[in-house]
Amino acid sequence: MTVELYPIGHVETPFETREDAPKQGEETPYAANVHVDEQFRDGLDGFEADDRIVVVWWADDADRDVLRVRDGERGVFSTRSPARPNPVCVTECELVAVDVEDGTLAVRGVDMVDGTPVVDLKPALD
Amino acid sequence: MTVELYPIGHVETPFETREDAPKQGEETPYAANVHVDEQFRDGLDGFEADDRIVVVWWADDADRDVLRVRDGERGVFSTRSPARPNPVCVTECELVAVDVEDGTLAVRGVDMVDGTPVVDLKPALD
Repeated sequence: MTVELYPIGHVETPFETREDAPKQGEETPYAANVHVDEQFRDGLDGFEADDRIVVVWWADDADRDVLRVRDGERGVFSTRSPARPNPVCVTECELVAVDVEDGTLAVRGVDMVDGTPVVDLKPALD
Repeated sequence: MTVELYPIGHVETPFETREDAPKQGEETPYAANVHVDEQFRDGLDGFEADDRIVVVWWADDADRDVLRVRDGERGVFSTRSPARPNPVCVTECELVAVDVEDGTLAVRGVDMVDGTPVVDLKPALD
């Protein structure tokens, strides 16, 4: 059994490559814009500036055969490495501003490479 | 463009239906066992009892056409509803015990229905 994800948009960030980007899962001060595709913008109502949100993204260049990391010393699931069987990554960001009509969310605290597909957005829990 | 997720295991919980389960994303006191399939167990090394972990799961009965919730008043992305375009859900749990060989993680704090497919495990951030 497999399930299919499709992007709802993408994120525009200052990082061209994974090496330029902060380590996945670290808190960062970097600003970016999440662009949500037109057909999903109806789902954006209810977000407000200063909310903490969770950006769920797909590391589309990740090696999915990785089970061991750090020279084989560590199991991949006990790390935040984007190379993993299902490279679904989760970054908690601060929502700076949202424009529902335009499908843009200005956020702060990103660690994704420019152009990364976004598959979901959620409110963060306290 | 779509991407394919495959389950790395499933979670055995006390909740038979979505109605029995706590609201997605709420902190809960409920214990459960995550069972990781044999071919992925090499990825489990490094977890320890008392870690906080993130269980990434797939709400396989979710309606994926939902963009508005609460009688149409609210965009789905600003809620934790499991019915959403990509029903990838994220639950932070306490790891009570782990048996790598057996592929079992006893956890506390679940909100998934029994048998829910698990697609990823990660350490929680502080």
